[in-house]
Amino acid sequence: MDPPLTRLCQNQTMSLVVVGSVAYDGVETPHGKRDRILGGACTYICLAASYFTQPRIVAVVGDDFAQEDHLFLQSRGIDLTGLQKVPGKTFYWSGKYSDDMNDRTTLATELNVFADFNPQLPEDYRQQHYLMLGNIQPELQQHVRSQMHAPRFVGGDTMNYWIGGYRGQLLATIREWDFLLINDTEARQLSGEHNLRRAAQKILDMGPHTLVIKRGEYGAILFRRHAHFMVPGYLLEDVFDPTGAGDCFAGGFIGYLAGEGINPRDGEIDEYHARRAVIYGSVMGSFCCEQFGVDRFRKLTRAEIDERFYEFKTSTSF
Amino acid sequence: MDPPLTRLCQNQTMSLVVVGSVAYDGVETPHGKRDRILGGACTYICLAASYFTQPRIVAVVGDDFAQEDHLFLQSRGIDLTGLQKVPGKTFYWSGKYSDDMNDRTTLATELNVFADFNPQLPEDYRQQHYLMLGNIQPELQQHVRSQMHAPRFVGGDTMNYWIGGYRGQLLATIREWDFLLINDTEARQLSGEHNLRRAAQKILDMGPHTLVIKRGEYGAILFRRHAHFMVPGYLLEDVFDPTGAGDCFAGGFIGYLAGEGINPRDGEIDEYHARRAVIYGSVMGSFCCEQFGVDRFRKLTRAEIDERFYEFKTSTSF
Repeated sequence: MDPPLTRLCQNQTMSLVVVGSVAYDGVETPHGKRDRILGGACTYICLAASYFTQPRIVAVVGDDFAQEDHLFLQSRGIDLTGLQKVPGKTFYWSGKYSDDMNDRTTLATELNVFADFNPQLPEDYRQQHYLMLGNIQPELQQHVRSQMHAPRFVGGDTMNYWIGGYRGQLLATIREWDFLLINDTEARQLSGEHNLRRAAQKILDMGPHTLVIKRGEYGAILFRRHAHFMVPGYLLEDVFDPTGAGDCFAGGFIGYLAGEGINPRDGEIDEYHARRAVIYGSVMGSFCCEQFGVDRFRKLTRAEIDERFYEFKTSTSF
Repeated sequence: MDPPLTRLCQNQTMSLVVVGSVAYDGVETPHGKRDRILGGACTYICLAASYFTQPRIVAVVGDDFAQEDHLFLQSRGIDLTGLQKVPGKTFYWSGKYSDDMNDRTTLATELNVFADFNPQLPEDYRQQHYLMLGNIQPELQQHVRSQMHAPRFVGGDTMNYWIGGYRGQLLATIREWDFLLINDTEARQLSGEHNLRRAAQKILDMGPHTLVIKRGEYGAILFRRHAHFMVPGYLLEDVFDPTGAGDCFAGGFIGYLAGEGINPRDGEIDEYHARRAVIYGSVMGSFCCEQFGVDRFRKLTRAEIDERFYEFKTSTSF
């Protein structure tokens, strides 16, 4: 069986707080179509992280949020104390992927109850050491950060919308972060540099000491001040649905670090664990694509995760 | 100093025969513009391979081919016995790169003396064990292959033009090859499969036991029947001119194997050397982009190559 609950007992204050969206998604890929399936960045991050530590969710859903979805998250050991349920409808997003699945078109975005999301952390959440801020308004990310008593490792994600329109707010927010996880397009937009090596140096000057640039099917690059680490993307036989893969990467990355109880002095983490975290992120992102929505996490085991981790090692070593 | 000539004396029959184009190129990139600079696939392959073994060139040039270019190739220890000089003009190509250098437009292709290229191998070339067939008409590749007495390791490159219009000829040609080096678009076209893992399996069924799929800035993947090896692209600070990078990859790959004297029984090579060959290919491709045309090879040393090989190791190990 999976170890999160056992480990939790040993490390009550080492667990992970995750803030972001819980949603219902409509997804169309060349492999089929699903509507109103469980989704949202926070959901994917928590599910991926739940194989390594106990994630504590901070999110809002409407009164349409299904009991079976609640039970599923609970079955993965996720602490749902911070999941507010309010009158109204849950955030809804739908999109359609191109034939090669490298592009997607958003068909609908209905914020619903997410429009008034004002994250309030339960008292025992505030004691935790790890904080992952999913892609929400930078001001809200900052507001959550300020509720934590003594976080040791804080970071998150953002997107083109905030980089373009809320730049000042975003820069003030990430200045306090230890890590930033974004994709290559976002890294180029944030830094104003096309070349990723130079883009990374500029972003490391903005605050975070650890930067992960995700490149979709081409893998990811970890940048620290004096070294970088490159990992190619896992070669899947079939990509069923890439929705949530980037969030699962984030969940695997931060979940692994929290689960190992890495206790960064001054917010620093050692290179050995940072690299392994990037591999676990890649592993979780790859599993996510194998079925629609969150379905792969209904049966995925820790043994499969470690097997794929090992496969990454054998297919990249020389 | 570089070791090719010393090594040659030990291994007279282990050296490498390279067939393809020697050309003059006109190139425009965001970093500037050059015209009538030395180029051609065979040139790049031989230059890259010359750091590991003695390449023996098989190509044709016109009577406009400059003495300084001849001397430069000679200075790299390349055997020019098979470089035919005939009346007329040397093959000319020109192209312009997009701002991000991921696309290029061909502005001119003047085959000139290359139109009647009928490769004839000097007698001592026919004794060699390694043969690299650059991107020319499959029938010509086959013709060259048939002139070799007992080649131990044969392979090459091809392109969309031959895959689309000369499919039968191409399949008959690569059936006899040990290795094939192509890019991802070509692999998809050749196999009719978008997914690279499945594309690779289909191509391995066509003959070659070793397939390298080049992915430009995203690196390369080595496929064998029971394993694959992925390497991310080297992160350059500046890409001056990507012309020839794929050919330099090929030169580093096959040059390293020939230089090490890998003597494949039944055409097989061991995984250890195959993987290192892919890294040396990546290293040579990355150096190629650092200056216009072949300029980087005027001063590049073997020590710099090994330093970058080591950098690949440190930036991919976990």
